[in-house]
Amino acid sequence: MELKPYLVARQKEVDRSLDRFLPKASAPPATLHRAMRYSLFAGGKRLRPILCLAAAEACGGRISHALPLACAVECIHTYSLVHDDLPSMDNDDLRRGRATCHKVFGDGIAILAGDALLTIAFEIATHFRKTSRYELRDVLEEIAQAAGSRKLIAGQVADLEAEGRRIDRRQLRYIHENKTAALLTASVRLGAMAANATPKQLSAITAFGRALGLAFQVIDDILDVTQTSEKLGKSAGKDVAAKKATYPAVLGLEKSRAEARRLTSDAHRALESLGKNASVLRTLADYLLQREY
Amino acid sequence: MELKPYLVARQKEVDRSLDRFLPKASAPPATLHRAMRYSLFAGGKRLRPILCLAAAEACGGRISHALPLACAVECIHTYSLVHDDLPSMDNDDLRRGRATCHKVFGDGIAILAGDALLTIAFEIATHFRKTSRYELRDVLEEIAQAAGSRKLIAGQVADLEAEGRRIDRRQLRYIHENKTAALLTASVRLGAMAANATPKQLSAITAFGRALGLAFQVIDDILDVTQTSEKLGKSAGKDVAAKKATYPAVLGLEKSRAEARRLTSDAHRALESLGKNASVLRTLADYLLQREY
Repeated sequence: MELKPYLVARQKEVDRSLDRFLPKASAPPATLHRAMRYSLFAGGKRLRPILCLAAAEACGGRISHALPLACAVECIHTYSLVHDDLPSMDNDDLRRGRATCHKVFGDGIAILAGDALLTIAFEIATHFRKTSRYELRDVLEEIAQAAGSRKLIAGQVADLEAEGRRIDRRQLRYIHENKTAALLTASVRLGAMAANATPKQLSAITAFGRALGLAFQVIDDILDVTQTSEKLGKSAGKDVAAKKATYPAVLGLEKSRAEARRLTSDAHRALESLGKNASVLRTLADYLLQREY
Repeated sequence: MELKPYLVARQKEVDRSLDRFLPKASAPPATLHRAMRYSLFAGGKRLRPILCLAAAEACGGRISHALPLACAVECIHTYSLVHDDLPSMDNDDLRRGRATCHKVFGDGIAILAGDALLTIAFEIATHFRKTSRYELRDVLEEIAQAAGSRKLIAGQVADLEAEGRRIDRRQLRYIHENKTAALLTASVRLGAMAANATPKQLSAITAFGRALGLAFQVIDDILDVTQTSEKLGKSAGKDVAAKKATYPAVLGLEKSRAEARRLTSDAHRALESLGKNASVLRTLADYLLQREY
């Protein structure tokens, strides 16, 4: 399979869908809707929605059924970035190669744009049509829990509290499991649910998502140390400067690379039971986990 | 009907329910869960949830069916207060007689606690059990739209943008309709939905909510001018100091009082078709709208 054209096609599909779900930039209050769209259409890779759609395919389902859930997850991801970048959080000026939301629109509007993206995620998710095994309640619980105070937000709190302190490997894993892996896992689980996955398929997809999510974050941490800002499209070395909890800081660079390789093979092993339907998901995992590090 | 014991009983019921739905204060991350509970259990009047329950009764339904929706609305209301009080928004130090969330926990945790309260609102709402006329999708759309970028958040944006500027009566009404009346209206509509309201009942409840919500905000504006901080439990005169858009500032005190009276009688008229089932709702409206002003 040629990955590049596949990714481009899926990105376009997700973008078209998001554009339909979001209020127009001119709809009042225009400042807010411009801020929401500024961050949502900032050239993100659409990693989570594409994984959601690929997981639906891997479980023998159709892309179109998973599309609202894919878009809901992307709105949640974007809201979390907008709030994470705020001065009272990570205080980041640069994201995806351009000024962060609060640098352009001010802190107040950035907070509200994040709030609005989180809220619209649930509205978009209501477009899910139930299958014989999963109903709207199931997917909403999945989203709310992954984005909630024990997962995504828990990871952000732990990250905030770890700043400037020495943390150990266990605490670092807690941060990554919650801040990154939880929403990635939810993305593939939601795709599986939209495909009416069997319990066995859902459990394979869950193990895959968890390993992929952790591997992805370890690699991100490594890249922050080894790459330039220009290449990353965000401020490189910032984790180190802010004494943030990262794998290279806790384990050193070499052990971090070994950990990334171990998690990557865990991810592949998890997909074995899904057979050839999961070939797109495998190619995607290779692509994500074989970035230069 | 004796209103005081009724209110106390309902408040307790809502508090018990919220306490069950929220993670324990000791559950990790404890800082976050303490911050969420600090703001949620800050001695609020539970106006919105009580209106939600009373609207269910007014439509011949049972309190217990409306309880998850009542709690969801209170979480949304509390999240909006936590974010509104932030330095980059209204910058308020005092709320319900005590320090605001960010003054106690810091801006970062306050933002995250607000995010978590918004997220858990949707999780709590999934406990709604469908009726013959309304399913989970309907109540979630109702909540997401009332809390979303065209209503609650739109009102907050307009309020933020109006600061220090002269605005006219039309713009002021836009702020109040969105910032206050939209969620109040949703509260009573959700109660009606939980009671499987007929279209005619739902439309009466909607008109009631809108008039009540506007009247409530006009009276709040008047009280900010005429009352002391001690009595209000929040910083009095702050609207004036911040050159905020208020009814007394735009219309003057006497015309504002006339507007409050007019809206109050609109609210009562809307309930006429509901007959004696709505007697609690009427008593509640009298109580809310006959505060000293």
